[in-house]
Order: sequence, then structure tokens, then C-alpha cells
Amino acid sequence: MTFFERLTQRVHQTGSSVCLGVDPRPEAHPLTHPERFGGDPAQVAKAVVYYFQAILEATADELACVKVQSAFFEVLGIPGLIAMAQLIADAKARGLPIILDAKRGDVGPTAEAYAGAYLGDGVFGADALTVNPYLGRDGLEPFAERAARSQRGVFVLVKTSNPGAADFQELPLAGGERLYERVADEVAALAERYRDGAAYGPVGAVVGATHPEALSALRSRVPHLWFLVPGYGAQGGGAEEVAPAFDAQGLGAVVSSSRALTYLTDEADFAERARQAAQAMKLAINRALEH
Amino acid sequence: MTFFERLTQRVHQTGSSVCLGVDPRPEAHPLTHPERFGGDPAQVAKAVVYYFQAILEATADELACVKVQSAFFEVLGIPGLIAMAQLIADAKARGLPIILDAKRGDVGPTAEAYAGAYLGDGVFGADALTVNPYLGRDGLEPFAERAARSQRGVFVLVKTSNPGAADFQELPLAGGERLYERVADEVAALAERYRDGAAYGPVGAVVGATHPEALSALRSRVPHLWFLVPGYGAQGGGAEEVAPAFDAQGLGAVVSSSRALTYLTDEADFAERARQAAQAMKLAINRALEH
Repeated sequence: MTFFERLTQRVHQTGSSVCLGVDPRPEAHPLTHPERFGGDPAQVAKAVVYYFQAILEATADELACVKVQSAFFEVLGIPGLIAMAQLIADAKARGLPIILDAKRGDVGPTAEAYAGAYLGDGVFGADALTVNPYLGRDGLEPFAERAARSQRGVFVLVKTSNPGAADFQELPLAGGERLYERVADEVAALAERYRDGAAYGPVGAVVGATHPEALSALRSRVPHLWFLVPGYGAQGGGAEEVAPAFDAQGLGAVVSSSRALTYLTDEADFAERARQAAQAMKLAINRALEH
Repeated sequence: MTFFERLTQRVHQTGSSVCLGVDPRPEAHPLTHPERFGGDPAQVAKAVVYYFQAILEATADELACVKVQSAFFEVLGIPGLIAMAQLIADAKARGLPIILDAKRGDVGPTAEAYAGAYLGDGVFGADALTVNPYLGRDGLEPFAERAARSQRGVFVLVKTSNPGAADFQELPLAGGERLYERVADEVAALAERYRDGAAYGPVGAVVGATHPEALSALRSRVPHLWFLVPGYGAQGGGAEEVAPAFDAQGLGAVVSSSRALTYLTDEADFAERARQAAQAMKLAINRALEH
């Protein structure tokens, strides 16, 4: 089964389009706070694993998938990367599709090495990887090729949710369209090239939730691409804002939220609070899709 | 001393603009070949460390700096990342400035986490980091800010040396200029914003060696940016092709080469061969700069 077939199946089973973001910030909860462990990085990383395992256990039934933010593990050094491998294994054991949000991008053998690291069978092997398009088509091909070969997925950054998206992504090109529209077209062509008779190719797009009009226009422009939509909750977008990312069947998008699900309280019931918040987010999105 | 002051000093001391690329490919030499170790990743990673330590020892006097390609360590899993930390420590002990070629890119706290990982004092702390501009100004600021604060450097991808650079980087914008020229202007403005009285700001640019005319035009467009120029040797550019990246004083650029320096032979004299090749590359560039 391809990655997007698996994701579709999971959305049907759980009735959820919620992607829980695993963005560990040890300082953000007393149970993982470095001061608690005299700053020992190995113990902090272990506490982070326990913290997010508890959250995954409590929330799994409410989730379409999990998005793991690599940067927050990398900054914790070797113990952080061991923790990332452990959480990837934990999510895998629960049957949760894992998107590794690492925004890698390179060409040739270097891109193949990244693809091997994150779409392979090693300890960092996820189900899908986010990728940066700046290097061009030969920077995307090795990821798509690997994903196609190993039933994994790739989400290419098309339009991000930060204000700086205006600086380059939204620049009008000589032909009239904007850069991110051109990138979206390339991504759609790439997905089609590797589709191989499946409903979707192995490649989707990252599209921020902060511009509903742009989201809606992109949905029509590339109707067969899955969207990973970050920026729900803490970063501003709500259920009405993300609704245009979905197709008429309520498919074609997953919406991710990190802080607004996982760091809601200083208390010990953080996992139960995460479950409630994930459920509320699921219901809010489903309600917005009924309109 | 800022990163680019240190780099300038090193270029003067060694008379070299050569940046040796550390791109481990265990299969590429019998001494590091996985088969030699029954595929045990920890032993392969250790052999890679020995291999490149020998090269750094033999070549250091001929080098301006070292460029470490993160992808080739990431694909080796946890042992690979330990090996990367060991080689960073080794290069640091030899006084070699280290550019970590990881092409990271994100915004806000995520970008700060990457900057903390690679421009901080942890085991992956290098002297400079390559960064991808697609997310926009707020994706570059956290890296520049951290680099300015900790006397480190950032090289932003402007124009890469792969054919796919034509797909997005070279697209003409509505205003007439090309995307990479707009990116170059933003990078120059960013460097100026954090210059703080030094000769150079903490930010430079990655500019491929495959288009000498573009290199020359960029050199005039952003005269105060240091360029990291990959693509020498194996990827095609020669000394005459990279010469336009330098300013009138023969400064402002370092030229990197990986395979063409480090994987020249199947024999045990690989380090001595690397030294000879680095010296020849140094002399060829210096000769081209005399014209």
C-alpha cells in the first residue's frame, strides 16, 4: 500500500485529519525541564521520550498521523537523536503514520543520502519527509524516487505559513504566476510521474493555513496533491481557515498542530489534555468540512 | 574575531582558498567498506573517522577550511552522527574553520533550534552553517542573529551548481531580475544588518562554480559577501571557472572539493594523495587569480 493510500485509510478509520506535532521543548513542562536533571542531556532526552510516549498513547485514536520536528531533537545532540529514533519506533508500533519534518534539500548522492536516512529502514526511517524545493527538480527527484520505491511519501514546501513567505515564495514571475504556484505545478508533475496507477503519487505539498484564499486557489490548481497544513492553533489558523485545503470528499489534507496540543498545562495530566484538544480539533475540522 | 575575519586570516596564513569537503562514502574505499566490518554500522562509522582524520592531518596546511556534509553522516544513523561530532572536534583541534553543509531552513523557534545545534557549543557546533532561503527573511534572521552573537557564519544558498538551479533559482521575476539575484540582494542586506563595524557581516552565499558569467555578475552585485563555491573538480568547474568568485585582493571566496580530493585511490596512500591534490588545487586557483 502506498503512503497516501495508508493515510487515506487512517483518515477513514479514525475520522480524523489531525496530525499531532512532536516538537519537544524541554523547558516547556516541569517533567522534562533540564533543571530537574541538573542539565544532564541524556536524562532530559529520556524524559522527553516518556512525555511524548504518554501523549501518543493518549491521542493515537484521535490522529491521522504524527509530525516529528527534527530540529528540536538535533539541538539536544546525540541523546536527542536517540530520543527521536525511540519516538519514531513508538509511533510506528502504534500504527501511526509518521511525517518527519526535517525540510531537507540537496541534489544527487547527497539527496539520496538524506532520502536513505529518513525514508529507509534505519532508526530515523519515517513514513514521509518534508523537503525544500529551492534546488530545483533534480533536488526533488531523488526523494520522490526513493518514496515511490519504498511506499513512503514526500511533502515539498510550497507555501509556508510565516510572514517571510512573501519574500520569495509569493514573488510574481515574469509569466504572471507566483513562484509558489510554479513550485506547486512542478510538485504535481512530479507526483504524476511517480503515480504508477495509484490514486495519488508519492509526493504532496506543505501549504500553510494562514491564507485561506491561497489555500483554496491551490486546491483547485493541484487537485490530486495531498496537503500537509501546518499553522493550526498557536500559529493562528482555525478550522474555517484550513477547510479550503480539503477536497469534496473531505480528503487530501492533514492539519498539524504542535504546541496547542502538547503543551497545554504545567500539570501531570498533559496527555489527557492533549487527547481532549486533539479530539476537539478533529471535531472542529469535521464540522467546518460539513458546511 | 568574527568568522569571516578568522577565515581571511587563515587564507593569508595558508595561501589557500581550498575548502576540503568531508563527504564520507564508506563504499568508496576498501578501508571503510561496510563489507570489511560485516556491515556493523558502528565499526564502519569508526573507520570513516580514522579515514578522514588521516586526510585532515595530511591536508590541513593546504586548506582554508573544511566543509562537512551532514547528509552522509545522517544516513549512517546514530554511529554516523557520533562520527560527525568526532570529526568536527578533530578539525577544531587543528584550528581548521568548519562549515557544516546541512542546508537547514525553518522559521521561529525551529530555526533557532537548528542554529543552536550547529552554531552553538554542543557536539555538532561548527563555525558556519549552510542555510536554505526558500522560507524567506524570517527563515534567515534566526541563523544570522545566532551567528552574529557567537562569532560564527552562515552561507545562504543563492545559486547552486546543479542543472535544476534553472527550475526556480533562475526564473525571471516580474521586475526583470532573476530569483537568485533577489535572494542575493536579501542576503547582502542581512549581512549588512549584522555587520556591526566588521569588514564582513556574518552571512555569506553559496554560489556554484558551473556558470562563470553568473559568478562574475554576482561578485559585482554583492561585493561584500563571502562566497562558498562548491562544484570544483568532480562536478565540473576548474580554476579558471571559479576565479570570478574572488575580489581584486584574491579574497571573498573559498572553493570546495570533496570526491576529487578525498577518494582518489583504492590504496593506503589516500591521505598523501589528498594532500597532493589539495596543494595542486590551491596552486591552480592562485595561478588563475594572478591573470
